Amino acid sequence: MNFSSKLLEQAVEEFSKLPGIGKKTALRLVLNLLNRETAEVSRFTSALNNLCEQIRYCRKCHNISDVELCQICSNPNRNEHILCVVEDIRDVMAIENTQQYNGLYHVLGGVISPMDGIGPQQLKIETLLDKVKEGTVQEIIFALSTTMEGDTTNYYIYKKMKGLDVKVSTIARGIAIGDELEYADEITLGRSITNRLPYENSINS
Amino acid sequence: MNFSSKLLEQAVEEFSKLPGIGKKTALRLVLNLLNRETAEVSRFTSALNNLCEQIRYCRKCHNISDVELCQICSNPNRNEHILCVVEDIRDVMAIENTQQYNGLYHVLGGVISPMDGIGPQQLKIETLLDKVKEGTVQEIIFALSTTMEGDTTNYYIYKKMKGLDVKVSTIARGIAIGDELEYADEITLGRSITNRLPYENSINS
Repeated sequence: MNFSSKLLEQAVEEFSKLPGIGKKTALRLVLNLLNRETAEVSRFTSALNNLCEQIRYCRKCHNISDVELCQICSNPNRNEHILCVVEDIRDVMAIENTQQYNGLYHVLGGVISPMDGIGPQQLKIETLLDKVKEGTVQEIIFALSTTMEGDTTNYYIYKKMKGLDVKVSTIARGIAIGDELEYADEITLGRSITNRLPYENSINS
Repeated sequence: MNFSSKLLEQAVEEFSKLPGIGKKTALRLVLNLLNRETAEVSRFTSALNNLCEQIRYCRKCHNISDVELCQICSNPNRNEHILCVVEDIRDVMAIENTQQYNGLYHVLGGVISPMDGIGPQQLKIETLLDKVKEGTVQEIIFALSTTMEGDTTNYYIYKKMKGLDVKVSTIARGIAIGDELEYADEITLGRSITNRLPYENSINS
């Protein structure tokens, strides 16, 4: 792309570094911002700057939070014996939206991915082990994505848990509700047959 | 969406005001920025601030430009007798990429759209008429999008040009090269039959 302005090119360049945003989309977004009042643009940029400078994480679950102990961790009605291990805040929000889970969370901040230079040290695995060693936690639920990286992370943590008195489970994988069997991939369908449930379970939930 | 942090919510809110960006995408983009170094984020935000504060437009064609007279307008090899009327810089870039046009441009900065509060006064129509009145321009080519707004703008300018000694044309509309006839919409197909060309034209270009 040949830009008639260096300033425009820089802005488009920065925008197109975001995931899923190509040069064309970046240009569209930048032109949209350009058509707005300067005050509106500075509201946009200062919201981002503020976020990155003042962001804080819950000291217990490592989720993004404005206070030291997030709403979930500080809620006495939550079951502190169950801990759901997730990748980031989006997964917490997704699970919270189901209103089916009453335990606490542990946000790893990513998954083990040597390709991106993320090893176990970059993730909040140590504090997870510390929590388990304290003895309050009775069950750990893995809710990481079923990618190679997610599976590796699950296995790494599982190995580290060996010898500790804690039940380790993973969320159920199977055919999504509303999906047609013929379009399901073989691994999912195979697993959903292996891990079949008593029919009564499906009508109770 | 329930956010655990006000700062995060504000940043997502601002991002989702951009066209085509919903709340979920906005959250993904914000988390991506959050995972980066602070220096990188401030490079992103200052590129945007710089753009909006220091942006300049070519005094002749109103395209975005770092200098007073843009590269195209200041190029002596360009044909100054032809003027292509476009909506914004993206259209200039698209036409320049074809390498088929050697005239100059006139960037309106939008199209007439009463719904969005854009009337002829908000667009660079006066300066276009002034240019034509000067007498150098022999042909005006409309290259606005074929939406109701684009057609209205074409017609408005066409009416204003009445009595002026200038040829007014519009870019050809028809079946795109590589498209199948059966999937073309009726209006396009109808027009492409009405405006059929001598076969020699299509083999010469």
